[in-house]
Amino acid sequence: MKRTAFYVSDSTGITAHTLGQSLLAQFEGVQIEHVIVPYVDTAEKIRDLVTRINAAYERDGHQPLVFDTIVNDDFRGSLAQSHGFMVDILGAFLKPLEKVLNTHSSYSVGRAHSAATDSNYKNRMDAVNYAMDNDDGARITHYDRAEIILVGVSRSGKTPTCLYMALQFGVYTANYPITEDDISDLRIPKALQPFKQKLFGLTIDPERLAAIRHERRPDSKYASFKQCEFEVREVEAIFRRYGIPYLDTTHFSVEEITTRILSQLGVERRQ
Amino acid sequence: MKRTAFYVSDSTGITAHTLGQSLLAQFEGVQIEHVIVPYVDTAEKIRDLVTRINAAYERDGHQPLVFDTIVNDDFRGSLAQSHGFMVDILGAFLKPLEKVLNTHSSYSVGRAHSAATDSNYKNRMDAVNYAMDNDDGARITHYDRAEIILVGVSRSGKTPTCLYMALQFGVYTANYPITEDDISDLRIPKALQPFKQKLFGLTIDPERLAAIRHERRPDSKYASFKQCEFEVREVEAIFRRYGIPYLDTTHFSVEEITTRILSQLGVERRQ
Repeated sequence: MKRTAFYVSDSTGITAHTLGQSLLAQFEGVQIEHVIVPYVDTAEKIRDLVTRINAAYERDGHQPLVFDTIVNDDFRGSLAQSHGFMVDILGAFLKPLEKVLNTHSSYSVGRAHSAATDSNYKNRMDAVNYAMDNDDGARITHYDRAEIILVGVSRSGKTPTCLYMALQFGVYTANYPITEDDISDLRIPKALQPFKQKLFGLTIDPERLAAIRHERRPDSKYASFKQCEFEVREVEAIFRRYGIPYLDTTHFSVEEITTRILSQLGVERRQ
Repeated sequence: MKRTAFYVSDSTGITAHTLGQSLLAQFEGVQIEHVIVPYVDTAEKIRDLVTRINAAYERDGHQPLVFDTIVNDDFRGSLAQSHGFMVDILGAFLKPLEKVLNTHSSYSVGRAHSAATDSNYKNRMDAVNYAMDNDDGARITHYDRAEIILVGVSRSGKTPTCLYMALQFGVYTANYPITEDDISDLRIPKALQPFKQKLFGLTIDPERLAAIRHERRPDSKYASFKQCEFEVREVEAIFRRYGIPYLDTTHFSVEEITTRILSQLGVERRQ
């Protein structure tokens, strides 16, 4: 049995999609086709959408699921006339929140529209620029500005983690690859020594590291299990020697790696 | 009046935080202190959290708001004993969904834990690597792999948009800066010509562009209003001449820019 899930919004649809996916992840056996419909902000777009929902109902033989965050009451009324099963995200919680906060909600559309000029947003973009400029040890003279400096062997997950921290949470994160030269010294590179408190290590299962490196440079020494195993073992020894906190990224997504690092270091998310 | 909002999860807390922020954005006058508490997965952590919630109640003189996506029923029961106002995200919608889907939800903790090995996740990370390798016109020989190639003047928002598309949605996006040389030719660079169908232009208000560039290189010709105004005008002429769709990014966040581009080009989000 196949179902269609619509994620509908008068803005980007990101909230509807995130919540809808979390809910549907609890139903493992159900096969879902996901359809995101952002910027539904005119009566005409609502009519089109109702047509699409009803068509999905005919095609699937099952009621489509409609996760919506549309604010306009008229539009929601029209949407409710479709054959979809409505999951009314704002409606379910706004009324109780109005009561406990003892105030009316603004029900304003598209708070996110002002995002581009607010200070949190600017900070996120500045953090992205910082992450790009300070990726892979490219510059070593701006670490005083970093909140976190990720260290680890090549392809242990440093770059995507830095980018995620910057884009989502506005955290200034640099990263520095520990190379074979550093390993032979058994010490952290000189450029990093004044910033020991900001260091966080990433490590990874050597077998997985070899697979990842193999995609990058097939059949190289760099990608060999022996080399990966050596680098990982030695880098972990450096982490322990210097008391650098570290995390094995093998089974974690960037969302999880980021959450654990920020938690452990007590760095705030600025969203 | 100040309130404390807790975003509580046995996983990263991203769903609770995203939804909670969307809801609270509807209450503009209310001052909120946001506290994210991920990985609440033991009875001890629940007890600590209840203590923190009750302390916030005493401090604020108002009931704290607790947005939770904890799956374990016992834990949720303990949490409900606190003085917080519970916004039970999963509970509100799972029961109705079980009914319409005619099946039980797995109520399994941490679907995200398997993220790091699923194919969508791998695709997202590959897209991040692609975006990094093909940022700012760094390589011009891999555009056959791109789904979208963003073009525009320096600092028009290309890089953060590419990274967001890759990290969040696994979309392969390259970007290419239109320089003064290209402008004097009034044509798109040779390397891009075979990929005209993939091009999407970003433009920006010259005044804002000048401000952004000024932070980068203060008092340079590059950052002068005159230069910015010239580049923007000429690049928009190129977009129009070649029929390249384009978007003014001045008032949009990367989330909105991304949503609009993917919508317009009909590219699917793979989350």
